[in-house]
Amino acid sequence: MPAKDEIFAARGRIAPYVRCTPVGKFQGFGLGFPVEVKFEQMQHTGSFKARGAFNTLLSQEVPEGGVVAASGGNHGAAVAYAAATLRHRARIYVPEIAGPAKMELIRSTGAELQVVKGAYAEAAARAAEWREATGAMEIHAYDAPATVAGQGTCMAEWEDQDLQADTVLIAVGGGGLIAGALGWLSGARKVVAVEPERACALNAALAAGEPVDVEVSGVAANALGARRIGRICFDLVRAQGIESVTVRDRDITLAHEALWRETRQLVEPAGATALAALMSGAYVPHKNERVAVLICGGNIAPDPLAS
Amino acid sequence: MPAKDEIFAARGRIAPYVRCTPVGKFQGFGLGFPVEVKFEQMQHTGSFKARGAFNTLLSQEVPEGGVVAASGGNHGAAVAYAAATLRHRARIYVPEIAGPAKMELIRSTGAELQVVKGAYAEAAARAAEWREATGAMEIHAYDAPATVAGQGTCMAEWEDQDLQADTVLIAVGGGGLIAGALGWLSGARKVVAVEPERACALNAALAAGEPVDVEVSGVAANALGARRIGRICFDLVRAQGIESVTVRDRDITLAHEALWRETRQLVEPAGATALAALMSGAYVPHKNERVAVLICGGNIAPDPLAS
Repeated sequence: MPAKDEIFAARGRIAPYVRCTPVGKFQGFGLGFPVEVKFEQMQHTGSFKARGAFNTLLSQEVPEGGVVAASGGNHGAAVAYAAATLRHRARIYVPEIAGPAKMELIRSTGAELQVVKGAYAEAAARAAEWREATGAMEIHAYDAPATVAGQGTCMAEWEDQDLQADTVLIAVGGGGLIAGALGWLSGARKVVAVEPERACALNAALAAGEPVDVEVSGVAANALGARRIGRICFDLVRAQGIESVTVRDRDITLAHEALWRETRQLVEPAGATALAALMSGAYVPHKNERVAVLICGGNIAPDPLAS
Repeated sequence: MPAKDEIFAARGRIAPYVRCTPVGKFQGFGLGFPVEVKFEQMQHTGSFKARGAFNTLLSQEVPEGGVVAASGGNHGAAVAYAAATLRHRARIYVPEIAGPAKMELIRSTGAELQVVKGAYAEAAARAAEWREATGAMEIHAYDAPATVAGQGTCMAEWEDQDLQADTVLIAVGGGGLIAGALGWLSGARKVVAVEPERACALNAALAAGEPVDVEVSGVAANALGARRIGRICFDLVRAQGIESVTVRDRDITLAHEALWRETRQLVEPAGATALAALMSGAYVPHKNERVAVLICGGNIAPDPLAS
């Protein structure tokens, strides 16, 4: 559970390696009010995940065997990139369903890409074998203090960029990004958790009173499809009592299309999920409530430039 | 030839209607130095052209017949959008070669879209007939004072966003955008004109000592393919003595790919042309020279979300 000073320290630590991502304030999207937007998909490897990966590698002793991850998604790409930048060995086990664009993104960092037949579970098993055989370090995608502190730097940075909003909407998968935001803000602004209704581990945990396994599917599942919300996130959400809303796949697709049509931002479905809560009315601001959405990722599949 | 106070006035005039587009500072693109970037493709209708269109319509008496344009590109879309926003009638003549994405962009504003068989010349002839028959107003795409003053607001805005650069690289088609920048900066920063070598009306005019017709082709010709540089631009360039460089289509494509790969910005080739000058070495900054590139448009064809 990262305290504000840990996020502050993380920010200094990772500053030479991550981007300060642009922000803007936009009228549009069929809304009658302006929305502040942070374009975190412009981060290295196309999502906020680079922040947590760098913070982990820079705050802990990295063993001779380097790092290992099982991921066909944004976390794997971020770990691979951070390890390559810091000259650590990285081995990333990717389920074959991840598709060529994500594989190429990981391979392009110089990481050892291991394509595993089957689904995520097989890749995770192979990663565990490698970790045990070599002593390589595994970086948790969302439920580790150093990961969460790294993701929290995104909100800290946004406040330095003159964020005005009373309320910030953030998409939730395993909860690393929103946990970092909650750790930083500590109630200073309202935070709304937005999940696809077909991948809503936080919403289900709040209903059950504890983290529970959920089935995940839908258009954003490849980035937001954690089966169980992280404990760090869950404890912070309970302590701060934030609002949790869900959106339909159709709403995500409409927000995705609006981001391209109105701002020429081509993002992945997860990256449009927070905006979908406003466009669909899943979250309706009060009169004069100033709102902001965080665009968390842009690794759309298939890659529009893939041949 | 817009004086600084005209651009200042234009900025106040159009402020309710245009976006303040985001900026950032990025390491990457294979360069050993950081680059400041302004993402003007996030402007309404996907390019800076909305600025000049709004300034024209807000600073002149618009006749009963509304406005007319012949354009299958960014100018036509911007005129259509500005007219619709200000509740003027707009009729846009589009050559059939413009393609479905641009047509849909124009149609979506509510403008009267007229698809004309043949190339641009036929569309222009039909627009002229309409103007004479109805008294509709035609807005020049780049060589009119109100257009140039509007485009100049982009650089004025960037300076307010804490632009640090000693040198700003700007892609040139007919020269409206760079003329606006020169009018605003008046030598306060170095400006570099970047043109595709297969659509280089400014470069050719400088060589000839006066605006001359050029053949245009290549990957960025649909946005930068003016056959003759505007007089306003040419006079400003001669007065200020700026540097003019050209880039190959291959360089533009590489910059286009790098913008997607490294920052998840999917722009049109014209939008990548300024960056191409840095990546290709067509413009090499001095040691410690701080540089900036303006991304001017994002209307890539085919539209990645078109069905």
